[in-house]
Amino acid sequence: MKKFINTEYLMDRTVSMIKSYMNSIETGERKVIDFHQPQALKEMFDFSLPTGWSSDEKILESMQAVLDKSVATMHPRFFNQLYAGANVYSTMAEWITSVLNTSMYTYEVGPLFTLMEEYVYECLAKQVWWEGHIDGMMLPWWSNSNLNAMQMARYAHNPELHKSGLYGNKKLYVLTSDESHYSITKSAMLMGLGKDAVVKVKTNEQGQMDVDELEAIIHQIREEWGEVFMINATSGTTVLGAYDPIRKISELGKKYEIRVHVDMIWWGTVMFDNTLKEKIDGIELVDSFARNPHKMMWASMQCSVWMTQRPWITASCNVLKTQYLFANDKGYGVGCDTGDKYSQCGRRVDVLKLRLMRKSLGQKGIAANTRKAFADAQYFVQKVNDTPELYLYQEPQCTNICFWYIPSDLTLPWTSHEANLATIKNNYHRIHTITAKIKDRMLEKGEMMVNYAYTKWYPNFFRMITISPKVKKEDLDFVASHIVELGREIE
Amino acid sequence: MKKFINTEYLMDRTVSMIKSYMNSIETGERKVIDFHQPQALKEMFDFSLPTGWSSDEKILESMQAVLDKSVATMHPRFFNQLYAGANVYSTMAEWITSVLNTSMYTYEVGPLFTLMEEYVYECLAKQVWWEGHIDGMMLPWWSNSNLNAMQMARYAHNPELHKSGLYGNKKLYVLTSDESHYSITKSAMLMGLGKDAVVKVKTNEQGQMDVDELEAIIHQIREEWGEVFMINATSGTTVLGAYDPIRKISELGKKYEIRVHVDMIWWGTVMFDNTLKEKIDGIELVDSFARNPHKMMWASMQCSVWMTQRPWITASCNVLKTQYLFANDKGYGVGCDTGDKYSQCGRRVDVLKLRLMRKSLGQKGIAANTRKAFADAQYFVQKVNDTPELYLYQEPQCTNICFWYIPSDLTLPWTSHEANLATIKNNYHRIHTITAKIKDRMLEKGEMMVNYAYTKWYPNFFRMITISPKVKKEDLDFVASHIVELGREIE
Repeated sequence: MKKFINTEYLMDRTVSMIKSYMNSIETGERKVIDFHQPQALKEMFDFSLPTGWSSDEKILESMQAVLDKSVATMHPRFFNQLYAGANVYSTMAEWITSVLNTSMYTYEVGPLFTLMEEYVYECLAKQVWWEGHIDGMMLPWWSNSNLNAMQMARYAHNPELHKSGLYGNKKLYVLTSDESHYSITKSAMLMGLGKDAVVKVKTNEQGQMDVDELEAIIHQIREEWGEVFMINATSGTTVLGAYDPIRKISELGKKYEIRVHVDMIWWGTVMFDNTLKEKIDGIELVDSFARNPHKMMWASMQCSVWMTQRPWITASCNVLKTQYLFANDKGYGVGCDTGDKYSQCGRRVDVLKLRLMRKSLGQKGIAANTRKAFADAQYFVQKVNDTPELYLYQEPQCTNICFWYIPSDLTLPWTSHEANLATIKNNYHRIHTITAKIKDRMLEKGEMMVNYAYTKWYPNFFRMITISPKVKKEDLDFVASHIVELGREIE
Repeated sequence: MKKFINTEYLMDRTVSMIKSYMNSIETGERKVIDFHQPQALKEMFDFSLPTGWSSDEKILESMQAVLDKSVATMHPRFFNQLYAGANVYSTMAEWITSVLNTSMYTYEVGPLFTLMEEYVYECLAKQVWWEGHIDGMMLPWWSNSNLNAMQMARYAHNPELHKSGLYGNKKLYVLTSDESHYSITKSAMLMGLGKDAVVKVKTNEQGQMDVDELEAIIHQIREEWGEVFMINATSGTTVLGAYDPIRKISELGKKYEIRVHVDMIWWGTVMFDNTLKEKIDGIELVDSFARNPHKMMWASMQCSVWMTQRPWITASCNVLKTQYLFANDKGYGVGCDTGDKYSQCGRRVDVLKLRLMRKSLGQKGIAANTRKAFADAQYFVQKVNDTPELYLYQEPQCTNICFWYIPSDLTLPWTSHEANLATIKNNYHRIHTITAKIKDRMLEKGEMMVNYAYTKWYPNFFRMITISPKVKKEDLDFVASHIVELGREIE
């Protein structure tokens, strides 16, 4: 039988490994990724799970290998996703959460966490000028928050559907921009509405929803097809970082009695800064919004919050009053149990990290981090403009900076932005391909990570993101020079 | 501006706090819960989130308060839920996961974790005699795994519904026992099928699905109402811990061409032990199953796995090929990106804890823990039988031990089990009420936690659960004597 080592010793060894890991990033020793093709990695790492036990030294070795062969998302040159490492207070909160190891559904197994969620919702509501009745839900991830918004909106539209299903009903539609997140379509599929239920409203070149087309589509659906149960506006789209005009959309929502949800998952953190807040002008009018503090707010994953101004919906939509969990004869009152609001049963404790971060940094600290990320984005825009081999897609509305690498055999006319864009479009295949190839080479080198994407108008471009307060100017300079270097190598 | 302390110092302080916490449980100093009514707790803990920052000492104080005012689920006398603390290797894996802080969707941001999931699925498939093509998904929590099963089954039944929605279709039904988990109903609501789509098959007194009634209902639905797209069998029900007869249900599934899913979330770990495995006899025949290693396998929360023998479904059901994430021009091949299989987008890394635990303990270690939990349950049954003030509901099939506290003014006839049960039923209100009251007093004392529930036949009873390898015989003895003591106090 296996002899187990002392728990404290195991903790000490793990923490010391983590410290060296963090230190190696700090000193610049560690690359962002030690990349290997899938087949090579399979041969390099022992993935096997034998019947017998493994010695603790083997487990510790395995942990070290995991640290070494994983992506260092806390590295200041990780710009690949809409997250980038996490705040250390948030990480410590996760450690405590993992030790307490409880679930969120009843007050009795998570008394403090249940009440913390309430206070966090109140704090968020105040940031967006919501007054009076509100409610919130913390969900596992972005898509779930949008899914939840759609479920709640459909229920509010017609509660009867939860009983008898969609069969006899008029067709239901959700309207969202063609630059919005794909979770809207995935949710429609899951909800039995089908892909056809998602009508994509066209966007302008800045990626913002065209409100005139939105209104025209509402008319068309009502006259010809069925009912609109929700409009999804996006504050900070995934690729271009565009902000849909919330106020105008909300006014249309009001006019036609359609619920409006705002997906501000990526850049909702602007709510903490008095100047940047204007980007979400009109947010006080909407029915619900979703945001992910694990993105711009720099919380650990997973951390996603959905908020509503219609608490009667959460109080009834999913409620089944299952007795083994939500017994109505509890001494503390079953009203304190939050689990029955959710479509899921058990739920991870995601509130502690959010609370500790917010408490530690204060609203001011979060606002300062936010402004810093916007300033970094501006700095990087300047860098792109100053680098002849790079060309900016457009002035960013957010901290997504989209730009192309221009191969040396291609000359932009430089008579106007439109003329340059036209040339890029005319060389679609060349630019599309070299962008993907640069990314491949970037992964192999492992010095940094930046993602790429394309839009309906233009070929692949790099989508640079600024989030982490740890990023320095030289990291941003490096992105520009490294892409040029890789491009020139490949040509 | 706030001056931040050194990260390493913060880690050291946090870990030292965690060690003292664990130590206070080990020595018996710490109770399971320091319970307070919601209003009292609100006054006792500073939940406020001021605009300014808080000092680090204040944050550390707050962490200590969180440890002190939360439920010690790792306490050997926490028997309240279907989880009870976590294995320390699992906890260490969570710490590493939180430091690496990445998401599961593309190979490039989680190369090792992507491959680890593959190997874990293969290992699980082998444990249930699945050969050939399989696939798996790790989902956030139990309900999501059952929801996923239902979505995949509905898609397999008719893929067209994902495009056009349910509107024109025949009504779709899912069959499940009346003791099965409520996530089936919640999922039906979310999926647009409605509550009416869930037909509850009656169970016998042991809580197992009546297969004859199941067949009769299939006939009735097909002849009169619509189509059955899935049968949900349960291996280890929430309250009684009953095992539905999987083999018989699968044979019916085959006969009527209906997909069979097994919810073995609570007690699927029997698959690791050659003797206990007979409880899931027939598992090799089913389409899919879901299990939660964060329950009986003692992994940290959240950890839920869904497995299928029909990988073509996962390969197409949710797939949208959204380009910004799953670009088809990636050098390593987009086939390695697992994200598009899911209804959600980003996903927490839940595989590391499972892998490290499995590797450390081996199949043998996990089987040994499983047998130990079953032996503890048997020991506790004996204890109940030896305690005149307690009465056993039935011989447990699993590690749920259901029993009543019998008030001193009530005398059971003791002529037969049926006669005793009849007396309990005749004193429904008295027993129902005192059970809830004992639980309230139990929370106030905080020495242990055990949950209660009722069934369609009988009033509230205690549902004792054995999971944790840390539980000693004296902890089990304490449960019996403490309940008697509390009951006598209240009377």
